[in-house]
Amino acid sequence: MQAIDTLIIPRWIVPIEPAHTVLSDHALAIDQGRIVALEPTAQALSRFAPRETIRRPQHVLLPGLVNLHTHAGMTLLRGVGDDLPLMQWLQTRIWPLEGKLLSDAFVTDGTALACMEMLQGGVTTFNDMYFYPEAAVHAAQQAGMRIAASIIVIDFPSAYAPDADSYLNQGLALRDTLNDEPLVSFCLAPHAPYSVSDAAFARVQTLSEQLNLPVHVHLHETQTEIEDSLRHYGCRPLARLERLGLLGPQLIGVHAVHLTPLEIEQLAQLGCHLAHCPSSNLKLGSGIAATAAWREAGINFGLGTDSSASNNRLDLWSEMRLSALLAKGSTGNATAASAMQTLQAATLDGARALGLEQQIGSLVPGKAADLCLVNLGEPSSQPIYDVLSHLVYVAGREQVSDVWVAGQQRIVAAQYHDPAHKAALMARLAAWQPQLKSL
Amino acid sequence: MQAIDTLIIPRWIVPIEPAHTVLSDHALAIDQGRIVALEPTAQALSRFAPRETIRRPQHVLLPGLVNLHTHAGMTLLRGVGDDLPLMQWLQTRIWPLEGKLLSDAFVTDGTALACMEMLQGGVTTFNDMYFYPEAAVHAAQQAGMRIAASIIVIDFPSAYAPDADSYLNQGLALRDTLNDEPLVSFCLAPHAPYSVSDAAFARVQTLSEQLNLPVHVHLHETQTEIEDSLRHYGCRPLARLERLGLLGPQLIGVHAVHLTPLEIEQLAQLGCHLAHCPSSNLKLGSGIAATAAWREAGINFGLGTDSSASNNRLDLWSEMRLSALLAKGSTGNATAASAMQTLQAATLDGARALGLEQQIGSLVPGKAADLCLVNLGEPSSQPIYDVLSHLVYVAGREQVSDVWVAGQQRIVAAQYHDPAHKAALMARLAAWQPQLKSL
Repeated sequence: MQAIDTLIIPRWIVPIEPAHTVLSDHALAIDQGRIVALEPTAQALSRFAPRETIRRPQHVLLPGLVNLHTHAGMTLLRGVGDDLPLMQWLQTRIWPLEGKLLSDAFVTDGTALACMEMLQGGVTTFNDMYFYPEAAVHAAQQAGMRIAASIIVIDFPSAYAPDADSYLNQGLALRDTLNDEPLVSFCLAPHAPYSVSDAAFARVQTLSEQLNLPVHVHLHETQTEIEDSLRHYGCRPLARLERLGLLGPQLIGVHAVHLTPLEIEQLAQLGCHLAHCPSSNLKLGSGIAATAAWREAGINFGLGTDSSASNNRLDLWSEMRLSALLAKGSTGNATAASAMQTLQAATLDGARALGLEQQIGSLVPGKAADLCLVNLGEPSSQPIYDVLSHLVYVAGREQVSDVWVAGQQRIVAAQYHDPAHKAALMARLAAWQPQLKSL
Repeated sequence: MQAIDTLIIPRWIVPIEPAHTVLSDHALAIDQGRIVALEPTAQALSRFAPRETIRRPQHVLLPGLVNLHTHAGMTLLRGVGDDLPLMQWLQTRIWPLEGKLLSDAFVTDGTALACMEMLQGGVTTFNDMYFYPEAAVHAAQQAGMRIAASIIVIDFPSAYAPDADSYLNQGLALRDTLNDEPLVSFCLAPHAPYSVSDAAFARVQTLSEQLNLPVHVHLHETQTEIEDSLRHYGCRPLARLERLGLLGPQLIGVHAVHLTPLEIEQLAQLGCHLAHCPSSNLKLGSGIAATAAWREAGINFGLGTDSSASNNRLDLWSEMRLSALLAKGSTGNATAASAMQTLQAATLDGARALGLEQQIGSLVPGKAADLCLVNLGEPSSQPIYDVLSHLVYVAGREQVSDVWVAGQQRIVAAQYHDPAHKAALMARLAAWQPQLKSL
């Protein structure tokens, strides 16, 4: 008998690879943070001696979800300035508030809150973009969550850095100190075409090639962004990024609400990835991204919540359901965006965009044991015809019961595994609340 | 001291009337199923002697939600035939399955399941449309939920009735037997323009006038419905209903995805009500209703989940959030559909469509104590700037902790109040599952 850490025996397993697979009578074996086997339960019981066996006869096991775009450090601004358009929201609420509040402590506590919310909802990896990435990484490590941290650059000064080169240098220095951390990876994160100069984009592209890092950038979010670019640069933002050499398989373009058919074709041909944030795009009045056309063209895309200031839930189940529904409703084609395609976007396709598809995103032996269990046993999930479709159209994050990151259980029976950590965070939030409320 | 049944002392109260009101340090007093006072906590404590006092220092109290359109009896078909367009879904899945399964027991158990799900999510009233309304009423009464039951009519035979007159006669007979039931009201429910003849519509309209009953009808859901009507009747469905005399304040038109600006104007002028079902409209590829234009024109509308075969959650929190986001995203105007307007649509405006605005929909002394408490104390709701906006953009049904219908508590600490009833239902569902799975 082979000693292992954990054997999970749920009612169903959805491994994501191969697609359209729902296994019954199967078990997943974990050892030293990795998946070591996915096989019939009887076989697993006959050859493994697990230190812990977890049986969940009403639950489905699937990979932890990948949140491909968020600003976790903004979570203390949840719900500030709702019902406002993007530019007014940024200029009258978000930027002035950030100007007053931005600090290591603000990002630490905001990210800690975001991690707790995301883990509880089955998200095990997030692609972050925010100031003080060292604070974000620290909070993610405290929570035991996987982070793609940002080497952020933006062409205006903040409490974090005075100019573009300083942003980049600080991010690169942080990356050097964290090179061996197993749950931490990095993306270069030039904020957006309207806030980053040609020179800074050029340096980002050079660094991306030298260090083999993804480039995480807001792109074609609003019509205004495109019109401003035409005025300032004489071309659309995408054309400008092409000229600067940024279009390629290292790119993760976020939002991409406004693309021409030719631009979609171009992104597909160059192997660029996109991050779709449907709630945020609707809430800020930006529009509806043409994800059915993206998929048709062959673009790989994942799902993102964006920040809790523009969503206001860091809930990838809401984004899954909404992205599938919007693809159908906006095209008039109810077969657009199947449940399987949507589950893949929230897991493996997001991992692929981050260059992490060899490590996470599906339940394949050798990959990290980033997992979530979803309870389909309550009345609101009955009856069950199709587990895949139930995960997308029926399930909500409240049904996530247990979550593992690299084999460590972070959510146990729907509760954060460390009540003392949660209580300490809630106390710090209570201390923030009066200061925030007065803004 | 005045003896009363219950005093609820939450952190906040959102009475819906007056609009934009969030009360702190207030309590709600209930006696004999009705709201008797909403006043400062100190005052309430000084003059009432409640048999039960409920303190919820993290929660917001608001009226129970009104689900303005569902087919509760279809809940056993949850998730059947996902990712299919409306007509194929109806013709190859729903109608054949209903042909095989439809019975009193099917509707009883489906409605019981729907009631449990809806109550748990803070819905206290639902406007139903389905066969065997006596079974639906029975299930709703068992669950202690308020139902607007349907006097359904459709021009094809079913196990329930052979022809249009029989449908109407059976529904009218049922209404006669239930006239004194406090939680039961009725709507005439001609299924849709494509499934109901002129003669049946004419009789519906006569009955509506004689009995003062609302008329609940699917309307302009798809472009196909409109094209078919042009072919068969030489006019659009709305024009046909106008010709038959059905457009007026008794009408509750469901979906209304495809309306011209002139039709919107006409519906507003005639005082018609609409039921907006955003998830179902997207999922079936029907499109996006122009609710911002409806509101601009002055049309009263509520929110509906539609059935769990086309949604697949009977979750009015999802519909609130989605309806607000869609109004913004589809118009490019982030100020469309404010949180307050959306909360009102899910409560008072739905009640108004049903003619029940004197009884439910807001927390006003004299109205029935249909209430729900929502927990805003968990990390995923922190921090809190604006309670109204948190209810729409942050909260999910999982945050509903306690629900009352006519002063009777049906959900207690997020659990259905009668565990034996729940266990019996789950056992019956387990018995259905093999039969359903084989279809």
